[in-house]
Amino acid sequence: MPHLNNMRCAVLGAGGFLGTNLCLALRPRVASLRAFGRRQSFPSALHGIEWISGDFADPTSVAAAISGCDTVFHLVNATTPASANIDKLADLQSNVAPTLRLLEACREAGVTRIVFVSSGGTIYGMPRQVPTPETAPTDPVTAYGISKLAIEKYLGLYEYLHGLQYRVLRVANPFGPYQTSLKGQGVIAAFMHQCAAHEPIHIWGDGQTVRDYVYVTDVIDALLCAAEHEGASRVFNIGAGQGRSLLEILDAIKQVSAQSPEVQFSPGRSVDIPRSVLDISLAREELGWQPQTSFDEGMRRTWAWTIAQQQEGTAP
Amino acid sequence: MPHLNNMRCAVLGAGGFLGTNLCLALRPRVASLRAFGRRQSFPSALHGIEWISGDFADPTSVAAAISGCDTVFHLVNATTPASANIDKLADLQSNVAPTLRLLEACREAGVTRIVFVSSGGTIYGMPRQVPTPETAPTDPVTAYGISKLAIEKYLGLYEYLHGLQYRVLRVANPFGPYQTSLKGQGVIAAFMHQCAAHEPIHIWGDGQTVRDYVYVTDVIDALLCAAEHEGASRVFNIGAGQGRSLLEILDAIKQVSAQSPEVQFSPGRSVDIPRSVLDISLAREELGWQPQTSFDEGMRRTWAWTIAQQQEGTAP
Repeated sequence: MPHLNNMRCAVLGAGGFLGTNLCLALRPRVASLRAFGRRQSFPSALHGIEWISGDFADPTSVAAAISGCDTVFHLVNATTPASANIDKLADLQSNVAPTLRLLEACREAGVTRIVFVSSGGTIYGMPRQVPTPETAPTDPVTAYGISKLAIEKYLGLYEYLHGLQYRVLRVANPFGPYQTSLKGQGVIAAFMHQCAAHEPIHIWGDGQTVRDYVYVTDVIDALLCAAEHEGASRVFNIGAGQGRSLLEILDAIKQVSAQSPEVQFSPGRSVDIPRSVLDISLAREELGWQPQTSFDEGMRRTWAWTIAQQQEGTAP
Repeated sequence: MPHLNNMRCAVLGAGGFLGTNLCLALRPRVASLRAFGRRQSFPSALHGIEWISGDFADPTSVAAAISGCDTVFHLVNATTPASANIDKLADLQSNVAPTLRLLEACREAGVTRIVFVSSGGTIYGMPRQVPTPETAPTDPVTAYGISKLAIEKYLGLYEYLHGLQYRVLRVANPFGPYQTSLKGQGVIAAFMHQCAAHEPIHIWGDGQTVRDYVYVTDVIDALLCAAEHEGASRVFNIGAGQGRSLLEILDAIKQVSAQSPEVQFSPGRSVDIPRSVLDISLAREELGWQPQTSFDEGMRRTWAWTIAQQQEGTAP
């Protein structure tokens, strides 16, 4: 693999939360960078970066996006865990099928490596072991997780058959700047947005649900490591390796905001897994990666960004 | 689950090798039986059984096939391990996508259980442990195996979300009457056909490739057990639990045929897994099933059937 400074990269799904952060990290480090996505959540952030607007389901746009690149970061999520279960076939058709077309395109274009962001929170299903290692059974209880798993397997197949290298990061619950509360995904983004807008904070369930929240710059560091990694493993958990309940998140938001928002509890969704925390030993050992930003520091930075967005009037 | 004699069954993929054998076994045992498939390999065998002709990709035909049934046997293979790797997207679209539509249809029609034939030979990929247990890693090196794996996961999801019960049989290499040599799948069928026709026998590779050959009536017994099973496990390996090389198969054919066919060796395919044998302990313990037909006895019956077909002039 080329080192970062020789790399010609494409980021697919570049307009979203991780994509925006990744592009900002890659830009000063790589030989060339192309960003591809349906739309940019924060256009000003990506100012000056080569942007190709297109739908992941359109093979022509995707082929144009990866042309001339050696390294492709695949961060596209056409669905969310909640929406995927409502129409499982649509989830398959909008995530797995276009990824297979992407892999064919990568092969034809001579791409050497693809780095894929998978889902640490959904791929294991109901975990029998917490923190959960990469070797745990993968029995997702969402179609979203099944699509991620199928894509992981197709990546393995393309390396086996065609020599297209790959690395998979099973990312836990990332949070930080450029995460929006729009798609019902980032609970920290949603809570902070509600708090900053002086709206009540909505909690699904009793607030005991535990997740592994990891600060976004740590996820981006892991993506850069994965792009250059030469070891034997292919699939890495990326999280903080620690669990926090929704009530703890709420407390942390009260702290960083110095506010006491009203809280409204709604009945929990039956698909919710009570406790999801990743074992990140493998990434520590093989990628030489570990989280650098404490949870409290991450929360402070995210709150500062939320407030700044609010004041600029650009918060979604 | 109803006992077999109260069961109203649909068999999807009924015109093929396993499907024909399954229908013949179910007919005298169940309350009602409907057979569905694109075409019947051996129409006379299914004479008198209710037959719906249709494509698995056509939701209307599939809905008609399962209407009024409580138990659905899903035996459809729209592709083969070899063809699947040539067009991986087509494999996904012709196997996984229609299975998702089938699962929706089962849910709407009030089907209580679906029994799915998965692939013991491809789902594990390069096995790190032989004989291979159900708990082994599943890293297929064919798109065929990935499709089977994805379907297994969607079955798990439908039970979890919607209460649709399922059982999966990861069947090794079945052989016996009604297997054809047409699709390049059954090596015993192909070898016997060549031998009976006094043609040279073609071996890919050096003949050392080891597979787990299981006689078809034993597979059918396992399917009947799976339809009634009430235990906790969902996924069972079904094989002989013993490996045999192609050269051993060749020797066995020489024995049962009392012939000495010419043998032609061709270079092996790179995707071939050298050795695949299933650990069948779980099926023994939980299904109360085990193979009843010795390999030699299975070979004798298969040869007798092959010769009879040849003489009738109906061999494919």
